Amino acid sequence: MRYRIGLDVSGGDHAPEEIIKGALLAREEVEADIVLIGVKEEIEEEASRQKIDLHSLFDVVDAPERIEMDAAPALSVRRQRRSSIVIGHKLIKEGKLDAFVSCGNTGAMVCAATLSLGLIEGVERPGIAISLPTKQGVSLLMDVGANIGPKPLHLLQYGVMASVYSQIVFDKPNPSIGLLNIGEEASKGSDFSKNVHRMFTASALNFSGNLEAKRMFQGASDCIICDGLIGNIALKVSEGCVEVMAQFTKDIIKKDPLAMIGSLLMKRTFSKLKKKLDYAEYGGAPLLGVDGISIIAHGSSNSRAVKNAVKVAAKELNRNINKEIKRKIDEVCQDSRIREMLTV
Amino acid sequence: MRYRIGLDVSGGDHAPEEIIKGALLAREEVEADIVLIGVKEEIEEEASRQKIDLHSLFDVVDAPERIEMDAAPALSVRRQRRSSIVIGHKLIKEGKLDAFVSCGNTGAMVCAATLSLGLIEGVERPGIAISLPTKQGVSLLMDVGANIGPKPLHLLQYGVMASVYSQIVFDKPNPSIGLLNIGEEASKGSDFSKNVHRMFTASALNFSGNLEAKRMFQGASDCIICDGLIGNIALKVSEGCVEVMAQFTKDIIKKDPLAMIGSLLMKRTFSKLKKKLDYAEYGGAPLLGVDGISIIAHGSSNSRAVKNAVKVAAKELNRNINKEIKRKIDEVCQDSRIREMLTV
Repeated sequence: MRYRIGLDVSGGDHAPEEIIKGALLAREEVEADIVLIGVKEEIEEEASRQKIDLHSLFDVVDAPERIEMDAAPALSVRRQRRSSIVIGHKLIKEGKLDAFVSCGNTGAMVCAATLSLGLIEGVERPGIAISLPTKQGVSLLMDVGANIGPKPLHLLQYGVMASVYSQIVFDKPNPSIGLLNIGEEASKGSDFSKNVHRMFTASALNFSGNLEAKRMFQGASDCIICDGLIGNIALKVSEGCVEVMAQFTKDIIKKDPLAMIGSLLMKRTFSKLKKKLDYAEYGGAPLLGVDGISIIAHGSSNSRAVKNAVKVAAKELNRNINKEIKRKIDEVCQDSRIREMLTV
Repeated sequence: MRYRIGLDVSGGDHAPEEIIKGALLAREEVEADIVLIGVKEEIEEEASRQKIDLHSLFDVVDAPERIEMDAAPALSVRRQRRSSIVIGHKLIKEGKLDAFVSCGNTGAMVCAATLSLGLIEGVERPGIAISLPTKQGVSLLMDVGANIGPKPLHLLQYGVMASVYSQIVFDKPNPSIGLLNIGEEASKGSDFSKNVHRMFTASALNFSGNLEAKRMFQGASDCIICDGLIGNIALKVSEGCVEVMAQFTKDIIKKDPLAMIGSLLMKRTFSKLKKKLDYAEYGGAPLLGVDGISIIAHGSSNSRAVKNAVKVAAKELNRNINKEIKRKIDEVCQDSRIREMLTV
């Protein structure tokens, strides 16, 4: 059976152009049918602009409404029933799609996925995971914004899901899990982090203890777990930091002719660096815990990022990630030491 | 009257060498007597190594014990009464010093300062502020780790203190205050952040609303307020990010001879960039709210960073920052709208 992966053509800063280009790239690398979901006329117009024979390449599903990037998530999901984000998830629920990928409104994605698909049995909250480039390769940071007031159990479950994802998507045999915190010792951080630390320590997971934010990019842990507020801030700070460094460098070069020549010679270095830092490279941010495959790609995704997100969706499907998450959640949460902690 | 500023010679990764070099630099730029506090023999040995006439330049106070960088803060402050960090703050309390600067254990600094000096009348909790380079110049981030479980009132007071510091140290006439959060709208974030947002909005402060982490380095707000856990993580992520970018760049250059030549031509650019990103440049991190001047410089401070921290201490003294903090805390916290919120 060939999988059917839905792709949101209405969402993202570079929609529809880069989305359709990404779909074309994905078609060549992924063994799956790609279903374009968006405003039909817009898709057709863009296809003719790109001179492609749309209907021989893709199925198209009309979604005449559009959830804007900055719209209030819950409200728009409730009201805009004919938007790509709502339709995409509904089609998964109805068995007409196997996965959905969107560069659109993150909050609306979380909301629509949770409402339409529900959660994997045993999972308490969904979370967004994101891949970070590190000195050792790549680490997964979770949660980066789905759950800003979590309980310790939610974070334990994020540890389970992140580790299953790292196994399946990054082929890491026994991923280590670190807890993002203010210091390395078990006694560091808030009461909340201490509770989470205790729970991870008691679990059967490969827990490597607290991880100081400074070491996040050193690849000290394969999975980095934190609440959604902290994860979001960690992610956005790193984005802002890269941007401002590029800006500062440009400003300095402008005043120095020698450096200007130097920067020309380093042009390839900078583009390689940009590629390495670009987490779109690693395939978007899966929303883990929902009972279906839903992937949130960055709003500024280009065609390559779109392609990579579709590839990850296909990998998750091929390896049946959600079945594995369910199995592992059962195993970890049914452990008597964890159950004891939950009844206290 | 000449101020007397104490400098911890025992604390920091490059102690005692860079500390004493920093003291020499500070002596030339600051109108104050510098008192070196540390293990006496060690100070004398280092001075003779640097071939300086120690006792004609500085007063020396013997502090034979040493609080290590990774020691448990409260415990070591209680037990190591003859350490530089404990003695430095005790001398302020006794009126024998006007300020104390250390590159040592941050937690021990917070602990010793709070115990010895107490808090400025009206202030509920001390906080650590740090200066960040931005596209517009410099912004102050507070708190970066003194208070990891704050109440909304603490953050309001951090807003007051950060804004007074920006006025006095950075000569900003009416500093704007942003709340570091997951999104810009008032409705974003946890219940805690919503309460803080309401309190700032009701206050007489120049509040510019929520600030997304991505915009932290754009200079959108002069003061960036958050709880100590988030602030610490934001700070450490940015440090880690700069470090990993430098590492990635080096790795790429190694494999590309043209880029190697380019990087030589850009050597000055990189050192300027490093200087711009180095927050030590901006004078260490003041511990605001304690009833005295206590400045925590980065553990890895070099002589220039030490000098800048001493300069900031002198500026705080000249402008009597704590008197101004007290006045402004009274004004903001006695406001009927704020008092109403606190009694609810």
